[in-house]
Amino acid sequence: MTTTADTPASPVAITLGDAAGIGPEIIAKAYLAEPALLRPCFVAGDVATMRRALDQIVGSSGAAWPVAQIEHASEVWDLPPRCLPVLQVGAALGPCPMGQVSAVAGEFAGRCVDWAARQALQGHIGAMVTAPLHKEALHAAGAPYNGYPGHTEMLQAIAAQHVGVTPDRLPVRMMLANEELRTVLVSIHLSLRQALEAVTFDNVLQSLLITHHALTAVLGRSPRIAVAGLNPHAGEGGLFGDEEIRTIAPAIAAARAQGCEASGPWAPDTVFMRARARPGLTPEFDAVLAMYHDQGLIPVKYLGVEQGVNVTLGLPLVRTSPDHGTAFDIAGQGQADPASLIAAIRMARSLAY
Amino acid sequence: MTTTADTPASPVAITLGDAAGIGPEIIAKAYLAEPALLRPCFVAGDVATMRRALDQIVGSSGAAWPVAQIEHASEVWDLPPRCLPVLQVGAALGPCPMGQVSAVAGEFAGRCVDWAARQALQGHIGAMVTAPLHKEALHAAGAPYNGYPGHTEMLQAIAAQHVGVTPDRLPVRMMLANEELRTVLVSIHLSLRQALEAVTFDNVLQSLLITHHALTAVLGRSPRIAVAGLNPHAGEGGLFGDEEIRTIAPAIAAARAQGCEASGPWAPDTVFMRARARPGLTPEFDAVLAMYHDQGLIPVKYLGVEQGVNVTLGLPLVRTSPDHGTAFDIAGQGQADPASLIAAIRMARSLAY
Repeated sequence: MTTTADTPASPVAITLGDAAGIGPEIIAKAYLAEPALLRPCFVAGDVATMRRALDQIVGSSGAAWPVAQIEHASEVWDLPPRCLPVLQVGAALGPCPMGQVSAVAGEFAGRCVDWAARQALQGHIGAMVTAPLHKEALHAAGAPYNGYPGHTEMLQAIAAQHVGVTPDRLPVRMMLANEELRTVLVSIHLSLRQALEAVTFDNVLQSLLITHHALTAVLGRSPRIAVAGLNPHAGEGGLFGDEEIRTIAPAIAAARAQGCEASGPWAPDTVFMRARARPGLTPEFDAVLAMYHDQGLIPVKYLGVEQGVNVTLGLPLVRTSPDHGTAFDIAGQGQADPASLIAAIRMARSLAY
Repeated sequence: MTTTADTPASPVAITLGDAAGIGPEIIAKAYLAEPALLRPCFVAGDVATMRRALDQIVGSSGAAWPVAQIEHASEVWDLPPRCLPVLQVGAALGPCPMGQVSAVAGEFAGRCVDWAARQALQGHIGAMVTAPLHKEALHAAGAPYNGYPGHTEMLQAIAAQHVGVTPDRLPVRMMLANEELRTVLVSIHLSLRQALEAVTFDNVLQSLLITHHALTAVLGRSPRIAVAGLNPHAGEGGLFGDEEIRTIAPAIAAARAQGCEASGPWAPDTVFMRARARPGLTPEFDAVLAMYHDQGLIPVKYLGVEQGVNVTLGLPLVRTSPDHGTAFDIAGQGQADPASLIAAIRMARSLAY
């Protein structure tokens, strides 16, 4: 997982994302801002799109940053520093009107993710960082992309096919992380009502095992995982709901029996605060398992979304992404902030095979 | 609501709370730390208990702080500064073993709240600040106190009796506030499953009207209230739940028709961040209406509970309280932090009639 200074790191692919959004812009900005960090990275995307994005930024700063077209991921280490390597994924993408849903941009974005996932599964790249997709554009792109609500489901399907199992045999979990807090979600894009039904013994146990394995690799030791309750005060002994007693506590016990350092269920309103890493304060936990989407995302995003990173746990590949969308409202205006993408690249490098 | 320098402010009662908990200690510490802020305040409690709490702290600091027994709230302004006024509520309370549930301490704590509520309703005090109760002790105290899960329900019952209506005709809402964020909760101590059922048109509208009226008084203008969605991404147009479409949006429209500056439903994972007041950044909203307990309390508590204040909205009296419990585990050890109580006193003074 770690690379010494004299061993070239595995190449890391950054997928273009929806070209009508802020993806190309934040990728170009990330190269300019953090050239050393991005040294092993290349863009799986479209040469002309990246050249336009770069010209738009460099034009204002005056620096010379060429785009270098590569054919194979391994070429990243042969290039001079201070250039932006792009691997053209299939036929060139024509110019897209910025900030608009387009089937062409959606198809291209999906194609890049598909390509990078297969490269990762075959061991040609060590990790992939995905710039944002637009769900409607992906849907407009038609089959196979319209079958996926987003990156995670697409990656799960491709990885399952690669491993030779059905996607449900390859359970994944989303982890959101920033400098202060890591939180893993039992479920994501479900209504709160459906999310309640997803808090089962199997799902909680599976979430704990996935988190344990993934974070053991990150930390080099067994992670201390706090499990949030579902109900206020974690049910206060069954007074406000009994899912903690019936479901969550037994799943924690089962995970502990399998070697996880899991604890809880803890009162949801204070467990995230207790897991917060701050200068001078050692947090009580390395990660919090949240029972539903907003329980985990509200605290991760509360301090500002700029530094949030999304990591897909449970796949046989490393994938991270920034914690924001295509931002069509500001696309092409030069205002997009690359901070979350840079944080995602840093995280991908620390996890890369 | 505001008091000029030459008009004495209305007296503010601080109820003792459970004498076996940290209440007396944090009250005494608040007087020592903020004598000017506490000038219009007195303790509705027990003289001997407060004297013991004060001696324990002053003993170590060496300062001389006498307890001054008063008979009426209005006497606070006749006392010299740097003393701690206590109004003895009923018969004296004997010493209580610290950190233990006791029916005697529970009964006394309940009695002080009952007394202060009636004083507030009769206009003898401008506000009440409640030190923490212990629910089990209140329950052990027997009738009428065992009929109330906590302060809020007790105050609601007393106020309803005073006004001559049934308690359900006097709806209240809990607001949690700190330096950065104000959040009002549609429901509090319900299981998440029950809380979903409590997200009705009537409850959301009522919450908005209560918040509007209470915060108009605080801010001196119409508050900008953000309404959080219930589901991830506020349902994303009905994709993950339709409560936003069926219930929340119509309630917002109805509240707007009645003059509230309400907006939403907003994505829950970013709305709290947008309402955060920080130096140099004007928040988009003055308060967030949260659809359930943890949605609102996770962000309020994320930065640390020390400064959190609980305000009961909707009652014909002003009541604030610190955002923590009796802390039996550290009671009597001199370690309790008065910061949240001090913040509650500051808030009570700003709201006092």
